[in-house]
Amino acid sequence: MSRKRIHLALHPYGVGGPGQHGLWKDPRVAKNASIDINYYIRQAQAAEHALFDALFIVDSQFINATYPSHYLNRLEPLTLLSAVATHTRHLGLVGTASSTYNSPFNLARRFASLDHISGGRAGWNVVTSFDTGTSKNYGLDEHLDYATRYGRALEFVQVAQGLWDSYEDDAFPADVERNVFLDPLKLHDLDHVGEHFKVAGPLNLSRSPQGQPVIFQAGVSEEGRDLAARVAEGIYAPGGPLQQAQEYYADIKRRTAAHGRNPDHIKIFIHGGPVVAATDEAARLREREIFEEDNDFDRHLALLGRSFGAYDFSVHDLDAPFPDVAHLAEKGGRTGAAKIIERARTENLTWRQVAQSLAEFRRSPFVGAPETVADRIEEWFDAGTFDGINLAFRTEEELELFVDGVVPILQKRDLFRTEYEADTLRGNLGLPVPANRHTAGATGA
Amino acid sequence: MSRKRIHLALHPYGVGGPGQHGLWKDPRVAKNASIDINYYIRQAQAAEHALFDALFIVDSQFINATYPSHYLNRLEPLTLLSAVATHTRHLGLVGTASSTYNSPFNLARRFASLDHISGGRAGWNVVTSFDTGTSKNYGLDEHLDYATRYGRALEFVQVAQGLWDSYEDDAFPADVERNVFLDPLKLHDLDHVGEHFKVAGPLNLSRSPQGQPVIFQAGVSEEGRDLAARVAEGIYAPGGPLQQAQEYYADIKRRTAAHGRNPDHIKIFIHGGPVVAATDEAARLREREIFEEDNDFDRHLALLGRSFGAYDFSVHDLDAPFPDVAHLAEKGGRTGAAKIIERARTENLTWRQVAQSLAEFRRSPFVGAPETVADRIEEWFDAGTFDGINLAFRTEEELELFVDGVVPILQKRDLFRTEYEADTLRGNLGLPVPANRHTAGATGA
Ligand SMILES: Cc1cc2nc3c(=O)[nH]c(=O)nc-3n(C[C@H](O)[C@H](O)[C@H](O)COP(=O)(O)O)c2cc1C
Ligand SMILES: Cc1cc2nc3c(=O)[nH]c(=O)nc-3n(C[C@H](O)[C@H](O)[C@H](O)COP(=O)(O)O)c2cc1C
Repeated sequence: MSRKRIHLALHPYGVGGPGQHGLWKDPRVAKNASIDINYYIRQAQAAEHALFDALFIVDSQFINATYPSHYLNRLEPLTLLSAVATHTRHLGLVGTASSTYNSPFNLARRFASLDHISGGRAGWNVVTSFDTGTSKNYGLDEHLDYATRYGRALEFVQVAQGLWDSYEDDAFPADVERNVFLDPLKLHDLDHVGEHFKVAGPLNLSRSPQGQPVIFQAGVSEEGRDLAARVAEGIYAPGGPLQQAQEYYADIKRRTAAHGRNPDHIKIFIHGGPVVAATDEAARLREREIFEEDNDFDRHLALLGRSFGAYDFSVHDLDAPFPDVAHLAEKGGRTGAAKIIERARTENLTWRQVAQSLAEFRRSPFVGAPETVADRIEEWFDAGTFDGINLAFRTEEELELFVDGVVPILQKRDLFRTEYEADTLRGNLGLPVPANRHTAGATGA
Repeated sequence: MSRKRIHLALHPYGVGGPGQHGLWKDPRVAKNASIDINYYIRQAQAAEHALFDALFIVDSQFINATYPSHYLNRLEPLTLLSAVATHTRHLGLVGTASSTYNSPFNLARRFASLDHISGGRAGWNVVTSFDTGTSKNYGLDEHLDYATRYGRALEFVQVAQGLWDSYEDDAFPADVERNVFLDPLKLHDLDHVGEHFKVAGPLNLSRSPQGQPVIFQAGVSEEGRDLAARVAEGIYAPGGPLQQAQEYYADIKRRTAAHGRNPDHIKIFIHGGPVVAATDEAARLREREIFEEDNDFDRHLALLGRSFGAYDFSVHDLDAPFPDVAHLAEKGGRTGAAKIIERARTENLTWRQVAQSLAEFRRSPFVGAPETVADRIEEWFDAGTFDGINLAFRTEEELELFVDGVVPILQKRDLFRTEYEADTLRGNLGLPVPANRHTAGATGA
């Protein structure tokens, strides 16, 4: 029997996200990378050349001037991915979209369109929106609370999946002799009436090449895990210290099984920002350099504030003990904020110390020469921490170093594919094609 | 002084819209044209090769099994246009999106993204949604009434334009020396509070290459004309008998001037489905053939019903006089419905006769040999009926016939460009780039 293999996705940093705020200063990074479609096409083609499973586009819809550079000015994920689709053939295209600030009919249609355009490579990363300020861009004074947001997310996904089943696979005989384009018996209303949505349907788009786009999820709270276990087929997970990643992985697989689902049908990707260099020593130096480049206290403080509803901590005495500001995070980054507060309390840290230590907290486990990085990846994989890694690189050169240095070693160890298994994202991830609920004899996956 | 020139856009029929329902049976039309991105890319490249101004994608979000074939199964316009963008360089990309069933932040972002991706070629055709059934796909039992829909449309466009001005043009110095990526003084909140929307902003995307995407509009009611005169820079107008097109054209230009705007800064495109053949006789035969191909009474009746809230007329005695069913159209196709009722009354028609005559009603003025079609176009242009034509062809071959036969004649008469004036849609349409409202010394266009 062949060995279970690792999945790899690419998360483009553009000019720099959280913890990479200074990236735009790197002379190898184009100042307009985050809004340049050719940057994304190049990233996608490099990822496809390296046989990666997917390009993964994160997103947000609230900023102020203190936000990370890439957040300030970036393309909307589905518009971006659609442009990338026709320049790739195998690579999955996963876009982040908020279930809190969209309508199911519209979004279901956009993802199904992307699935048609890409020939079956669309994935939707369902988020409930981290930034509480997003509400004010959508007419709400307050961000919805966790229970409402995640309740809405679950119903949203179910409605979208219902809409994706509007047409059975053989709904369009297009039979000229009989003058039948559509077989009307194969078109189904949805007539959904739920707590959050009323959607009659049908969708005005046929079943897409994957049956349904792949559902991803990113959210680590109790509510987020429950949503994942119920409907997600992929997760973007934080990773983080090995033991924490192990616990998270086991917890998700257990919850998924408890919902009567095959735990193999939810692929957990952890975030990985490898630092690869010719030697371990050189990689560690480079890691330090990156840390210093981004070591700007105002940025750390702003990023800390983001977990607390974009709260401006700079107005306080930063050398006082970190106070209990959990209430500020109640609706946004509650889970991450709770961890920060917990650590501040245990280690008795001031606000300044908390802000400064956030960067250290985000260190990648995958630092070293190619062989070392491959070893660490194998070690983490065997320890049951992930099914895949969502890789982020600071520059196109560093992506190349990984692809040319680390990927061949993973392949030699039979840990990574040497050719694509399929042309669809489902096919490459080993996920089943969902049967259409209306088709006689069909069984769910 | 050179002559005023005609603008041309291409409206792809896919497998067939209203009045072209039988198109899918044409052996030259691929059965999946409406969902095949390569069909659209080919159409776009042909249009660009012919120096057309834009590709124009119409849209709807409600169907039932009686709807025209292209409506049943088509790609979402922005996803479609984004994929087309990277395969063209000069062609404008105009997508239809409803102001009734979208949120301004989300939609403004998507169009600005398309404008970035295409290097300044995005246009938004603002519609309020013709199909009353759309409401039930968006949680509303009833379609909004005209006044509300058009009030919302105006405010929607104003909010979108406000969001597009979030960043001044020089907001990102990206100055490594001074460690300044963003100049925070050049980022502006919107803080819009209106009757329909509350949107704080700013948008997380910089000003796009055109300053702002071009606003189109399609709607012929009093309310629709008022919206156009206030904010539209282009119109998709029905055209129709010459005198009607003249009146419409003059009315729009007058209203635009009355709002203090330059009437040259609103380009009126009429719908044109030319039938070109080697001789006038052959073109007329072809026209008859097309008419017969689509002459399916059930389809005519279904299409008639569409103007009356997808009402099923087939349950009635079709040989009775056409009754006053205006109330059914109150929220949807009121203007068109009123015309139908008016004509039925004057000519004393039965329901059957009304349904049958609808197809005749839709006849194109541009039928004949290339020289004849060019003559008619010039005649209509000189009569003040349009600034541009939104051309629709049944097959790729018929598009070619027009491009190879009619376009060179228009060029010889100095009625159409022989090379693109610009790389942006604004540039080719002769529309000014709107100044950013926050930039000192800036003046509106
Ligand atoms: C690895 C990872 C990636 C995420 N990416 C996004 C994102 O792109 N956009 C977003 O709004 N939220 C993102 N989130 C945040 C979640 O959607 C969620 O809102 C946040 O984590 C708070 O919810 P939680 O407490 O369930 O985690 C991400 C979370 C994780 C762990
Ligand atoms: C030439 C033309 C094209 C149109 N295209 C669309 C379209 O693609 N989608 C849509 O929902 N409505 C479309 N409309 C309809 C208008 O948006 C409008 O809803 C309809 O005409 C009823 O409003 P009115 O009475 O103002 O015309 C179009 C109208 C015209 C005249």
